[in-house]
Amino acid sequence: MAVNPEDFFNPAMLDQPRDTKNSKVGSNVTNINVINFPGLNTLGISLARIDYGPLGVNTPHIHPRATELLTVLEGTLYLGFVTSNPNRLFSRVVKKGDVFVFPKAMIHFQMNLAHDKPAAALSSLSSQNPGVISIANAVFGSNPPISDDVLATAFQVEKKLIDWLQSQFWENNHY
Amino acid sequence: MAVNPEDFFNPAMLDQPRDTKNSKVGSNVTNINVINFPGLNTLGISLARIDYGPLGVNTPHIHPRATELLTVLEGTLYLGFVTSNPNRLFSRVVKKGDVFVFPKAMIHFQMNLAHDKPAAALSSLSSQNPGVISIANAVFGSNPPISDDVLATAFQVEKKLIDWLQSQFWENNHY
Amino acid sequence: MAVNPEDFFNPAMLDQPRDTKNSKVGSNVTNINVINFPGLNTLGISLARIDYGPLGVNTPHIHPRATELLTVLEGTLYLGFVTSNPNRLFSRVVKKGDVFVFPKAMIHFQMNLAHDKPAAALSSLSSQNPGVISIANAVFGSNPPISDDVLATAFQVEKKLIDWLQSQFWENNHY
Amino acid sequence: MAVNPEDFFNPAMLDQPRDTKNSKVGSNVTNINVINFPGLNTLGISLARIDYGPLGVNTPHIHPRATELLTVLEGTLYLGFVTSNPNRLFSRVVKKGDVFVFPKAMIHFQMNLAHDKPAAALSSLSSQNPGVISIANAVFGSNPPISDDVLATAFQVEKKLIDWLQSQFWENNHY
Amino acid sequence: MAVNPEDFFNPAMLDQPRDTKNSKVGSNVTNINVINFPGLNTLGISLARIDYGPLGVNTPHIHPRATELLTVLEGTLYLGFVTSNPNRLFSRVVKKGDVFVFPKAMIHFQMNLAHDKPAAALSSLSSQNPGVISIANAVFGSNPPISDDVLATAFQVEKKLIDWLQSQFWENNHY
Amino acid sequence: MAVNPEDFFNPAMLDQPRDTKNSKVGSNVTNINVINFPGLNTLGISLARIDYGPLGVNTPHIHPRATELLTVLEGTLYLGFVTSNPNRLFSRVVKKGDVFVFPKAMIHFQMNLAHDKPAAALSSLSSQNPGVISIANAVFGSNPPISDDVLATAFQVEKKLIDWLQSQFWENNHY
Repeated sequence: MAVNPEDFFNPAMLDQPRDTKNSKVGSNVTNINVINFPGLNTLGISLARIDYGPLGVNTPHIHPRATELLTVLEGTLYLGFVTSNPNRLFSRVVKKGDVFVFPKAMIHFQMNLAHDKPAAALSSLSSQNPGVISIANAVFGSNPPISDDVLATAFQVEKKLIDWLQSQFWENNHY
Repeated sequence: MAVNPEDFFNPAMLDQPRDTKNSKVGSNVTNINVINFPGLNTLGISLARIDYGPLGVNTPHIHPRATELLTVLEGTLYLGFVTSNPNRLFSRVVKKGDVFVFPKAMIHFQMNLAHDKPAAALSSLSSQNPGVISIANAVFGSNPPISDDVLATAFQVEKKLIDWLQSQFWENNHY
Repeated sequence: MAVNPEDFFNPAMLDQPRDTKNSKVGSNVTNINVINFPGLNTLGISLARIDYGPLGVNTPHIHPRATELLTVLEGTLYLGFVTSNPNRLFSRVVKKGDVFVFPKAMIHFQMNLAHDKPAAALSSLSSQNPGVISIANAVFGSNPPISDDVLATAFQVEKKLIDWLQSQFWENNHY
Repeated sequence: MAVNPEDFFNPAMLDQPRDTKNSKVGSNVTNINVINFPGLNTLGISLARIDYGPLGVNTPHIHPRATELLTVLEGTLYLGFVTSNPNRLFSRVVKKGDVFVFPKAMIHFQMNLAHDKPAAALSSLSSQNPGVISIANAVFGSNPPISDDVLATAFQVEKKLIDWLQSQFWENNHY
Repeated sequence: MAVNPEDFFNPAMLDQPRDTKNSKVGSNVTNINVINFPGLNTLGISLARIDYGPLGVNTPHIHPRATELLTVLEGTLYLGFVTSNPNRLFSRVVKKGDVFVFPKAMIHFQMNLAHDKPAAALSSLSSQNPGVISIANAVFGSNPPISDDVLATAFQVEKKLIDWLQSQFWENNHY
Repeated sequence: MAVNPEDFFNPAMLDQPRDTKNSKVGSNVTNINVINFPGLNTLGISLARIDYGPLGVNTPHIHPRATELLTVLEGTLYLGFVTSNPNRLFSRVVKKGDVFVFPKAMIHFQMNLAHDKPAAALSSLSSQNPGVISIANAVFGSNPPISDDVLATAFQVEKKLIDWLQSQFWENNHY
């Protein structure tokens, strides 16, 4: 097949803020990976732009196949990751221009600390197909649901709370 | 340094059931990996024996660096894993002699379905140092804790429920 | 293609002893790898159950693509491996519940030390397609045969002994 | 050794334009890799901010150990890479918000097309230690110099032109 | 598909000198890699025979996916490679029977020092598909050409010299 | 530490035939790998020159960590390898200038077919530390010896033949 320069190009408009108003968690992740940019195939890298509304959260999640290196484009974020057992939290407040790294397959999150303005970040990921597992969604919003016996034991709460959580709408904020 | 046959040997007593009575979740995981068996260094494989009390649960967790191949030694288990977005659950009931595989870095769990007898499994892991992240423990039991603002947004519950969850004792059932 | 939970499941009956009476070497290896369990594809792990009759031998062999981590399920075994030049033997007697590791591509073997009862082991292998090369079979039972000039020189014996060995039946005890 | 959140953080000030006036080629590359950010060790990713003055050039170079995924932060760039034999050029004009990928170890370059304003880009690299070989510098500015016989033959010019080129100052614009 | 011994065999005639008279640079590289020897697929190795006429040069080039280990078959060579920044040259004169290694993706070259007789080398490469990027060819002979603005800045010469270089014939001496 | 050109150079004298008269098997292997050429560390490649006396044999052996690509320098060889189960032999007669490949960790051998003159080959190996396991030596000449019960069963011969074989001198022809 003929290859041409367009195969290595993506008009990703990564300079443009995305809407966060329609997100329950107040954030919006725009992925530029092999799924929408086939030219990245075998090349071992991808990108994501993350927009945060006021107090918006990119909820705890995992990339099973990638380390993430985040650069703050705008605003101030509280972010962190939790290590494999024992479960230590490494967290920090970071501001525009700062860089923070989340090692491969660790649970991590970010939150915009401002009450009145948006924030944004640009992340690099060490795989063309990093995957994403949002923890609350995967645990309480899977299809079909995980048995509430398992989750009641795991979270040490009553089954009716698990059932209520499983009946909620679990939005996917990664596109 | 001199190397001898003992370096490749571990008297793991993997035939011996472990106690599950002192576990809040009713399970007990015995790891045989590079941390307690240095001879596995660089060799890319390790083991775990999992004991389950009646209705005991090996709660949802992730091995960031390994696929797990589980063989049922005794009893009947309900087990499964959730894929990367979209969050599909692949679950099944398995019995003595059956084999089930949990792909690398996917959230997975097992539960003993019997009310009155123990169960056990032997798992092979595709790394000498697979790591383990128990989801509920990492999210609610990290040290220091994750901000309850982040978790309230992620789990769509009130902050006082998060605070209560963070005040619980989060047992590590992996040794 | 649709994927379902059965793709990650194998009713391997690994709790069931296999017959060893019809084996000239008194052993029987049951493989659970990508050839009969396609769901293991790309996952980097597989299993084998090994049954030994009284004094049965799993003869010297190599897995070209995997380290093997063996757990004794039943009985007492004499086992070992030989290193790359210089050819040191690392051997040991192991019993039920013990674990021993054979590094990738090293010649290794096991033998049931009991005259009157069977033994069994469960092995984990660090590849979904480990391969197996039984040394005596590969050297004397290949199709077509290796020139007896080569083997007479290698084993320092007369060609008529090589010819006699090449005329024997070389059973494959790996399934 | 104790690890703390600062190990995963770098106050890189990647939002700040760098000076390009003192560069002969009109560009300035700020690297954030394992050399100045040790926390990236083993994590397989790094960053670079590239500033371009008016008509500034990031001259043809190679990263021997990384693919580069470039996002335009400001301005309009002409950029491209040349493939392994046969030597096809894949080039394009890209603007703010666009993404372009340079596959591992291919010769690539960028140039700011504006006569009167700066441009900037943020690049992700698929190694914590990507390395950089600026072609003209490596060929004409190595220490000690490559024999002018070799270079005269390679570039099909007279040796006195090679000697003149080797006597120039070859600035390194990567920090 | 049936596999047979011919799949692992190549009648490469690597003992036969190749013609160098028709080469402007006085050298001729014969590659034995996966492109003309499919049996090397996945095996991670390939070969090249290099013939040099009197004062012939294998011009500065890069193998993006392989280390090269060169053995001198005949004659005396001046050879070397330039490291990633800073650009140090590691060069040496080597003679028949000597071995020299060029690390992966470093710019390297060889030249026959004799005025009156040929030289030859046999190289091993650590990939079945190493690729080759001849520096002068890729920079001045790409199709389409790189903008002369970029190259004039990179090489610190006038655009008319670049234009003249781009109008030359850039021979590919790798087959 | 300072690095210099000598670190990448080895005066291996690979053009010089080695003595094969003092070898019981009539062959002599000269290795150029990381053990005697530290500059190859991490580079993933090494070499061996193999000399064969009349009817000399490089006996069946395995490189646990490398594919071998052999080029015939002089003479005519019968060579081959045996695949993983089933044990097919891929063999062929090759002459000066021919190339043959032995895939990683397969049992392989070569023999000089001439009664009256030497042969020689140059092999490339896809690891800086390929290792070598000569089959007869590892099986019958290990230190300490493998139990003769195991070997009598494996080779289907009487224990006294095994004992006699184990009492022989097993020369290592790899240097």
